[in-house]
Amino acid sequence: MFADGTPAVHKCAMSSINILGVAGSLRKGSLNRALLRACVKLAPADVTITPHDLDDVPLYNGDVEAAGDPPGVAAFKQGIAAADGVLFVTPEYNHGVPGVMKNALDWASRPARGAPLGGKPVGIIGASPGQTGSARGQSQLRQAFEFTNSFCMPQPEILVFRAHEKFDATGELTDAKTAEFLGKYLEALHAWVLRFK
Amino acid sequence: MFADGTPAVHKCAMSSINILGVAGSLRKGSLNRALLRACVKLAPADVTITPHDLDDVPLYNGDVEAAGDPPGVAAFKQGIAAADGVLFVTPEYNHGVPGVMKNALDWASRPARGAPLGGKPVGIIGASPGQTGSARGQSQLRQAFEFTNSFCMPQPEILVFRAHEKFDATGELTDAKTAEFLGKYLEALHAWVLRFK
Amino acid sequence: MFADGTPAVHKCAMSSINILGVAGSLRKGSLNRALLRACVKLAPADVTITPHDLDDVPLYNGDVEAAGDPPGVAAFKQGIAAADGVLFVTPEYNHGVPGVMKNALDWASRPARGAPLGGKPVGIIGASPGQTGSARGQSQLRQAFEFTNSFCMPQPEILVFRAHEKFDATGELTDAKTAEFLGKYLEALHAWVLRFK
Amino acid sequence: MFADGTPAVHKCAMSSINILGVAGSLRKGSLNRALLRACVKLAPADVTITPHDLDDVPLYNGDVEAAGDPPGVAAFKQGIAAADGVLFVTPEYNHGVPGVMKNALDWASRPARGAPLGGKPVGIIGASPGQTGSARGQSQLRQAFEFTNSFCMPQPEILVFRAHEKFDATGELTDAKTAEFLGKYLEALHAWVLRFK
Repeated sequence: MFADGTPAVHKCAMSSINILGVAGSLRKGSLNRALLRACVKLAPADVTITPHDLDDVPLYNGDVEAAGDPPGVAAFKQGIAAADGVLFVTPEYNHGVPGVMKNALDWASRPARGAPLGGKPVGIIGASPGQTGSARGQSQLRQAFEFTNSFCMPQPEILVFRAHEKFDATGELTDAKTAEFLGKYLEALHAWVLRFK
Repeated sequence: MFADGTPAVHKCAMSSINILGVAGSLRKGSLNRALLRACVKLAPADVTITPHDLDDVPLYNGDVEAAGDPPGVAAFKQGIAAADGVLFVTPEYNHGVPGVMKNALDWASRPARGAPLGGKPVGIIGASPGQTGSARGQSQLRQAFEFTNSFCMPQPEILVFRAHEKFDATGELTDAKTAEFLGKYLEALHAWVLRFK
Repeated sequence: MFADGTPAVHKCAMSSINILGVAGSLRKGSLNRALLRACVKLAPADVTITPHDLDDVPLYNGDVEAAGDPPGVAAFKQGIAAADGVLFVTPEYNHGVPGVMKNALDWASRPARGAPLGGKPVGIIGASPGQTGSARGQSQLRQAFEFTNSFCMPQPEILVFRAHEKFDATGELTDAKTAEFLGKYLEALHAWVLRFK
Repeated sequence: MFADGTPAVHKCAMSSINILGVAGSLRKGSLNRALLRACVKLAPADVTITPHDLDDVPLYNGDVEAAGDPPGVAAFKQGIAAADGVLFVTPEYNHGVPGVMKNALDWASRPARGAPLGGKPVGIIGASPGQTGSARGQSQLRQAFEFTNSFCMPQPEILVFRAHEKFDATGELTDAKTAEFLGKYLEALHAWVLRFK
């Protein structure tokens, strides 16, 4: 116990980490972008989540890559390399991972100028207006990380179903149960990332 | 029976069809683009395959879509709508369908200005330099067509493995066995498309 | 028009069909077995669904098969061969298709004494107590039918989520909305099967 | 540095581990059982692989489970619990994981009398007579471990394609390249398992 009454031993003894947050949608009002913003706010004190937009990551083209990574790609790869872990927040389109999300990984996986996903701890969550909460989008996304040799946390799982009912018009999370789940998820991700540090 | 003994009824009695061909790579020297060109040449007499490049289909963005389909998207959707069937020729990146390919489908699946994939017969083939011939890319791609209510031909299956050894430097198919398989595949696709016409 | 005012031409003009129904669980109180029983009752007048239990289909063993199909396997294959189509009702275990369900297909797919799944129209539905309604179990199951060359109906999709709340203690379906969806699904399956007859 | 010049710190300092080996086939002459036997022989000095047959694991039935785990199930769960990690050697049937393999996991995942797969490090390899080396079987199998919260090693990947050409009539591995890959794989699995010990 310190003089001011703070307990000396507390949960915050875990090292602090920084997480890159990537939402797989370009739409400003996207539920998954809103979910990522909720994660930023709900992160434990020693976990910093920095969102990284995919707007500047163009469609993958091997001819373009051969001439050098476009600035948006270089920035994305550097963001991954500098982070202790990456949190992917994915919609589900057509029973799978959105092209926008997979495309960014297709660039980031390329060995050309460093393959920053190798050995990187990864979390995957997602939201959908339907019933499955992006379950099939998340499953496909996981398969990519087998190849990139990233370390995906298997559990817990966050499937935010009927997501449009859980955020207000400004994109603020209003569902208490989802907020509670996210808090626990981020604590688990913290411990997962530290396993590999 | 003709004078020379040839039976009057023969295979060519099947109606002719037109197929839109879509390769999931933007790279000029892509093996999958080369595979699509081989299909154009090997198509049976009454099957016309018209390649459609994805260069002009931008990254999916719901905000952009709300303002109207970009010209490249409109052209892609019209190409699908006008065809009797679509042949998708897909690489495998990171154990899955390339973002470039999935992204085009994410646009085409949108009901906004017609969902031309609904009820459309579809074939899927692919090539990879590795051993699996894009098997996992094809599997993920198939899942998209469950949602779009397209009719994927289940068999035969074309997995062009070690594809870099089967095309010459100009992208011409040089492997006789692959050519033979493609010919049979396209005959099967012809019959599949006619089932739904 | 008949004397009593009944229109002479009505929907029942579609040919009648018989469907083999297969639930992927051996547990007597299984929600998916209950769902299959609901389908039997809700089937349109000209669709007959006959449930086929998997209790007598043993674990697949190539050595056993070489000596002849066990009676339960022979009966299952004959049931499929005699039906116009097959309706698979699948749980989801561990994010995938139950071993019990896949095992039955592994037997049925074997060419040894006829591969009755080839060219057979197939429907897939499922239930789970959780949120996703067996979505991932259904996705894995679909992949099997690519190989067996069966014709899976892509849409509509039936994901009975929180299924334990939709059946009473005797396994009777009590949820009106689910009953309505099933009725429409079975009409669509009727039309799908007739496409291939 | 010792007197004789040997560096004091060397690779052999890694702790020894024991691995349960599970092949997903009941056939005596199975290529995947032969592959597992090859792993037993090729394991590094400090890695012991103990094969566990699935012959005594019956089809999953929740009613049977409610009355107590059958002896074969109890033995399988104890084998997993006692091991530092598990190596799954899977065929591919019908584009997916064999029912026999998935069924064993369906039992092992059940929390009833301990869920020994939780937090367990896992490796997945496989063989097939075809071109893909069980790639799709392995992908489906991985999905199960998301749910059981097991830690699957993402890379390296072992796809033993055209496997019938790589073993002799007695099931002995005769392909030097495959043997070399397996040796490296098992070293990587050793390090992976130790991460979680």
